[in-house]
Formats: sequence, C-alpha cells, structure tokens
Amino acid sequence: MPYSDLDPVFAHIDRNADSHVARLMEYVRHPSISAQDVGIREVAGLLMGMLERLGFEAELLATRGHPMVLGRGPAVPDAPTVLLYGHYDVQPPEPLEAWTTPPFEPTIRDGRIFARGVGDNKGQHLAQLLAIEAHLAVHGRLPCNVIVLLEGEEEIGSPHLAEAVAAHADKLAHADLVVTADGTLHPSGRGTILYGVRGVTHFDIRVRTAARDTHSGNFGGVVPNAMWALVHLLGTMRAPDGRLTVAGLCDPVVAPGAVEAAAAAALPIDLPALMTELGLSALDAPRDRPFWDRLMFHPTLTINGIAGGYSGPGSKTVLPAEAVAKCDIRLVEAMTPDQALAAVRAHVAAQAPALGATVEVVGSGGMLPSRTPMDSPFAAVLRRALTLARGESPLEYPCMGGSLPDYVFTKTLGLPAFVTPYGNADEANHAPDENLSLSCFHAGIRSGAALLSGLGELTGACVCPVNHTKLHG
Amino acid sequence: MPYSDLDPVFAHIDRNADSHVARLMEYVRHPSISAQDVGIREVAGLLMGMLERLGFEAELLATRGHPMVLGRGPAVPDAPTVLLYGHYDVQPPEPLEAWTTPPFEPTIRDGRIFARGVGDNKGQHLAQLLAIEAHLAVHGRLPCNVIVLLEGEEEIGSPHLAEAVAAHADKLAHADLVVTADGTLHPSGRGTILYGVRGVTHFDIRVRTAARDTHSGNFGGVVPNAMWALVHLLGTMRAPDGRLTVAGLCDPVVAPGAVEAAAAAALPIDLPALMTELGLSALDAPRDRPFWDRLMFHPTLTINGIAGGYSGPGSKTVLPAEAVAKCDIRLVEAMTPDQALAAVRAHVAAQAPALGATVEVVGSGGMLPSRTPMDSPFAAVLRRALTLARGESPLEYPCMGGSLPDYVFTKTLGLPAFVTPYGNADEANHAPDENLSLSCFHAGIRSGAALLSGLGELTGACVCPVNHTKLHG
Repeated sequence: MPYSDLDPVFAHIDRNADSHVARLMEYVRHPSISAQDVGIREVAGLLMGMLERLGFEAELLATRGHPMVLGRGPAVPDAPTVLLYGHYDVQPPEPLEAWTTPPFEPTIRDGRIFARGVGDNKGQHLAQLLAIEAHLAVHGRLPCNVIVLLEGEEEIGSPHLAEAVAAHADKLAHADLVVTADGTLHPSGRGTILYGVRGVTHFDIRVRTAARDTHSGNFGGVVPNAMWALVHLLGTMRAPDGRLTVAGLCDPVVAPGAVEAAAAAALPIDLPALMTELGLSALDAPRDRPFWDRLMFHPTLTINGIAGGYSGPGSKTVLPAEAVAKCDIRLVEAMTPDQALAAVRAHVAAQAPALGATVEVVGSGGMLPSRTPMDSPFAAVLRRALTLARGESPLEYPCMGGSLPDYVFTKTLGLPAFVTPYGNADEANHAPDENLSLSCFHAGIRSGAALLSGLGELTGACVCPVNHTKLHG
Repeated sequence: MPYSDLDPVFAHIDRNADSHVARLMEYVRHPSISAQDVGIREVAGLLMGMLERLGFEAELLATRGHPMVLGRGPAVPDAPTVLLYGHYDVQPPEPLEAWTTPPFEPTIRDGRIFARGVGDNKGQHLAQLLAIEAHLAVHGRLPCNVIVLLEGEEEIGSPHLAEAVAAHADKLAHADLVVTADGTLHPSGRGTILYGVRGVTHFDIRVRTAARDTHSGNFGGVVPNAMWALVHLLGTMRAPDGRLTVAGLCDPVVAPGAVEAAAAAALPIDLPALMTELGLSALDAPRDRPFWDRLMFHPTLTINGIAGGYSGPGSKTVLPAEAVAKCDIRLVEAMTPDQALAAVRAHVAAQAPALGATVEVVGSGGMLPSRTPMDSPFAAVLRRALTLARGESPLEYPCMGGSLPDYVFTKTLGLPAFVTPYGNADEANHAPDENLSLSCFHAGIRSGAALLSGLGELTGACVCPVNHTKLHG
C-alpha cells in the first residue's frame, strides 16, 4: 500500500506544529555568520546534538574553512539512501537598523517568523530533521537510509564544498540521490522541483595600451585608448543580435531533451508583469526566444562592469592606459568553466594584435552546470511526495538561471540531485526582515516526511539512476 | 633702428637678476589656491599694488567667482596694444609630505626656485611685469600700450573667464594681440610659440535597460545588459581603424593651411623615446598619420571611463541596468562644443531603438578651439623677440593637443593670440616640488622686454591682424 506509513506521520506533524515553531525560533536565535566567522562552531555543535538525539551518527568534517556537519541515520536494509544537503551558515544581518525586530531575536508577526537565516536555510533543513523525527516518533524507524550534510560556507560561495565532498566521497557516494531544501516556492505558493542549474565562470579581461594613464588633450590621437580597445574587443564577442561570437564557446552545449523542453514550455510566466516590475521595454536579444529557454538552456556572457580611467562624478580628461571588463558566463550542459575560459582566451589572443594592446584574461573561479534528467525514477517519487504533502502537484523546472554547487553531487559524486524549496517567495533572504511563513515551514516538514515515505516505497527496487549503477551492483 | 631701445633694457635685467629672484621668492610665499579659496584676495591685492607702482591703472574685475586683476599702462600714441594674460591662482599643494621643502617657503636648490605656483604661473607673469619695469626704469616709458589681465580661476578651469571677458570687452577689445606666458619650453630649452589649441567638449552617454540592476544568473538572458548596449553603441561611434563614425561630427573640420602643415612637419619628435617612456607598442589608429598632425589637426573621441554595475575587487554577479560612458571630444577648427554634442546626440538617438535601451547624452561643458594664423604680422614680432632674448629661434607649434580658453581672445574678442612659455620643461607644475629654473626666469624677463620693443617697432604701422581691423579705422 503506497505511502501506507505517511498518514500517522502527517498527523504527528500537525499535532506538534507549535512545538516545531518553538524549536525553529530557538535555533535561529544562534547567529552563524560565515562571512564574519560568528557562531559557526556553536551552531555546528547544536546540529551535532540534534543529529545524535535522532539516533544518527554525527561527525564534524573539517574543511580548509568552516566545518561541515555530517549525520548518518540507522541502516535500513535494501532501501535507497537519500543525501539531504543544506547549510547552517547565514548571511550577515547588516544593516541592522533596517530590521523591524532584531535579526537574532526571532519574532512572529502576521503568520511569519522573522529572523536572519530562518528561511535561508535553517528553517528548511530543520524541517528535514523534524520530518525524520516524526517518522521515528510514529514508527520507531525510518523508511529509507538518510545522510544529512550541512555545510557552513554556502553564504560565502561554498569555496570548500567541492574538495570536501571529493575528500569524503566514501561517506557520501553510496547515496542514491541528493535532495536540497533551499530557495523559495513559486509566488503562488505552489511547490517546485528544480532539476538543474546553470554553471558560471568569472573572469576579467584586462586590456593595456600604455604604461600609464595620460592626458586626453596632450596625448589624444597619439596614445591608444585602452577603453576603445576593450570596446572593440568586446564587440567581437557578442553581436548586437545577441549571438555569442566567441569561437568554440558554445560548442559543447547540449540542447534540452523533449521532456525538458516541454516542461520549460509548460511553466507559467507573467511576462507583462515582470517587464513592468523590472522596467523593461524589451527582453534581451535575441528577441524571439521562449522565456524559460533563456534562463535554462542558453549560456550568457555578462559584462558586470568596466574599470579603468575615471568614472566618478564630474569630468576628468584622462586617456586610460588600462581597461578591465569584469565578466561572467553562465554555462549550460555540457559547458565547463575551463572550456569556456579557454575559448575566451583563444578568442582574445586572436583579436589582441589588431588592437595595439596587450590583453590578459584572468579567471576567478566558477562552477560547473548541473542537470538531472526529469525522467529519473526519483523524480516521480518527489513529484508524488510534494503532491501528497501540499495538496497540489509541483511546478517542475528543468534548470534555474543561477548557479549552485549542485555539480558536486551530480558530477563529483555521480548522483541525481533535486532541489525542493520550502521557503515563501517573499522570504527576503539576504535582506533585512528575512522571514519564513509558519505554513511554509509546516508544509516543508510534511514534504520532507512524504519524501522519506516515497523513497521507502522503492525498497528492493532497481531504480537505475542515470550515471549511477550502485543499485545494479 | 630696429629694437634700438632693447640693449640697455637687457643690461638692466641682467644687472638686477638677484633682486628679481628675491621678488619672485617673496611673491610665491603667498598662497593663492583657487580650489580651496585660500589667499586669493590677498594676492590679487599684491598685484594691484605692483601694477600701481608701475604707473598702471589697476582695477579689480569682479566675476561670479574669484576676481580678475586688470592693469592698463600709460598711453603710447599710435603704438599697438598688447594684452598680457596670465593667472595668479595656483594648484593645491597637496600631498604636502611629497615636497622636499614646504610649498610656500620658496627655496633655491640646483639653480631652481622650488615653490607652489613658481612656474604655473607666478614666475611667468611676474617676468612680464619685471620686463615692463625694466623698460620704464631705463627709458622712462614703454614702447607700446600694455594691458595686463590676470585671472584667479585658471586652475579650476577658468569657469568665468569667458563671461567676464565678454562683460568687460570695452576694456580689452581695443588690444591688437594677446600674449600668454604659460606652460613650458621644449625639453631642449628652446623657446616656443604656440598659435592654437584644440577645444573640448565633455559629456556622459547614459544607457539604461532596466529599472534596477539584476542578478546575472537569475536574469541573464532575459534582462538586456546596459553594458552590452553601451559597448555596441560606442562601437558605432569609432571604428577600430580610428575613424570617427558619428555622422556630421567632423564636417566643420578645416584642414591646416600650407604654413601650418609645414610647421607641424618641421617640428622635432623623438618618437622611439616617447613610445618607450609611455610603454607603447603602437601609436593610436590610424597608424599612418604624421605625429604632430594627430595632436594639432584631428579631433579625438576619448572614453575617459565607464561607470555602472560593479568594477571593484573580486567578482559580483550583477547584470547592470545602467552604464555610463564618460567621454571627451577634442575639437579642431572649426568644430564647436555645441556642434559636436549635437552630432553625438543625433547619432545616439538614431542608434538607441535597436539597442533596447534608453540613451541620454548629458553635456558638462567645453571650450572652443582656437587657431591664430602663423602668418600674422605679430608672429614675426614674437619670433624675432624670442630669438633676440634667447639667442636662438623658437619652435613654432600651430596648435597644441590640450585645451585652454584662448578662444575667449580669438573668438570672443577677435584678437590674434599667442602663447610663449617661459617655464622649464621639468617644472613639475600641479605636482610636488614645482620649480622654475633661474635661467628660465631670467630669459623670460628678457623675452617679455624684447616683445615690448618689437611691438614698439610697429608704431604707426598698419599690421592688419586677421579678423581685427581696428588699425584700419
């Protein structure tokens, strides 16, 4: 009988709603600000205690930065293993004066808890832990194997996640799937499943035409202007019609499959409202591209800003000797940061001689893209679990436009990875008055519980995840 | 007998060299920092006293900023009238710690006086006043009519010179020529005559694609990037081969006459040394243009810098909603700031619709170019005077690359205008350890004296300056 264990767990969760809220409020009272190194060890210790009280083996994994908390649930023979990822660090709370109530004194107003980190990500991974607790309280056992991995550096860009996961692959790679509860639901409140992210590579293009800045009158017409060299160089990299014209850059791009393309086409978007909100007269070129395809299936080359010369108030008659374009490229399957940067370097090297300039491309890190097939057997489990927990089927996003280190799971560990956000769309994460609605928190715990039940249904089955053959072994 | 009055004046100047140096040191002891409004009134008062002691009518001309000092010498019937222009304000002395000796405690080292303003411009206009004094001391009279005009805002861009000169045209426009002693000699020490300057217009090109900056992941591919719109727009304004491609911008350009072209071609330039000093691998495009022509006879469009998005250290995944190119155009005869800005506006308006952006061009002031014909009869006087005073013929520059408000004299007053620098090439003006060599100061006084004698030779003659017909009347 499918999900036969779930109804009493839902009932338990509903009965304990007030106590769950009280425990979240106690948890977010503790700062854990990775950027400022405030409270990290203390909150990691709190999590170790929580895991141990659940009967998990808890372990603090050292990294070159803040430690990760790892928990392993009691063995459930022949059942699949889910790796629940989250992060216990929070954004700095500043500016403090913009908060209605202090960021680390959680307060309930209008059906929401206001506190730094309550949505991003403490309320979401606590919901997963409370879902585990509910199963254990009702049934004395879990439906499947569970690994919990909570990192302490997500808000500073997860600089050590990849190497730490690779270093501890023996403790993680026997998982069958990764589920992350982070981010926000659709503004309508409908649940979502996210199957992929774009990758990113950051780099500077540094153009130099002279040893020092000169005077635009005394040398204008004599000394080549680095800004003009940069403008002309950039003009060779993206056409006004939106095509990226860096040779080889887009060669690895894998077009979406039929399932992904159909899913993207089916997603809602209120384009007039979005354009009004953002003050757009047109979408970016090319103009005829479907909305979601833009964010999911196409790379971008973004100029973040241009340094050099003088760009402050008033005028300064400077002829810049150096100009630096700060750029990022959002990567889609199967582009990589290295491949993209190599294409940019080759393009720039070919253009430089005609510019009368020396040009250097300086990379500053990146992330691989990640894409989990929407026809993964685990996708069906998540779809059903979210529908049971929330009363309506989730929206399904083949990919999101931004970048998260999901590749660590899909590429380093070779696991299918899914993101199922529990936060309200107006959670104001990274901003003053961050909040989590009580109903979203409650639905999150139910979602986590349904997920565990659904995975339990697969006990003994061969689910054959793509690129992951352990269950065959 | 040409310059018959000059030898005893030279002898007087040579005899009084020490006392002249002492008077310059006393003068530069008084700060007159226009940008900081320090000592302006006091130094204007000192100059009024100096002019009165020369028997000049002295007048303080109010402006909307700092006042100008006007002096009028005793009438010399039938002799031409020279307007000697200079400025009594100085640059701020900061950074004070970079000075070997304090900026307002003049010190002689290695045959130079070190003090703020000693070269720019106090030592140079004092040389003119001491030349007048020498003529009066030796002969009891001046060879020609002299008007002295010293402004107090040159170091902040002469913001009120044009309107003040126009307002007081009745006191100035009966001059026959304007001579400015400012700037530096050729590095070889050879005297120079400068006949023109390029004009300039400053403006910002502001491109906006959205109401606010967005996240390059969440919106990259959806929201048009203002930096790309700006890059593509700028790419339509100047070709990689150096041609300015703004329609109408260069239409008014008057090619140099045969005299000017020949003068430019005859000027020395050590191109390899210059390129080494500035670290250039090539001159600006177009590559085949003669060196001096670049600075004298062609306009430039310089990007001074580009604001918008993020261009600081590290990376920020911003998709800029606004991008601003700060630009200047150096203008040659007969371009004007208004004409150039109108051409830019028309070009930008024509390009904007294709960019998916709103584009605005915001002007922030400018100066007309100025060009005095090298075959002016006064040019011969200056050439001879400098040769007599310095022992070799001067270099003659039809134009300089930078911009000075000479148009106020050539266009507002309709007078031929000449610049004859007295400063050493390494005077370090605007910088710590500004200095004037004693020999340059001395040669400057001799040059001023010779100029007055030369103009005296024209007494009764019709010199018919271009655009100036008073002597015919």
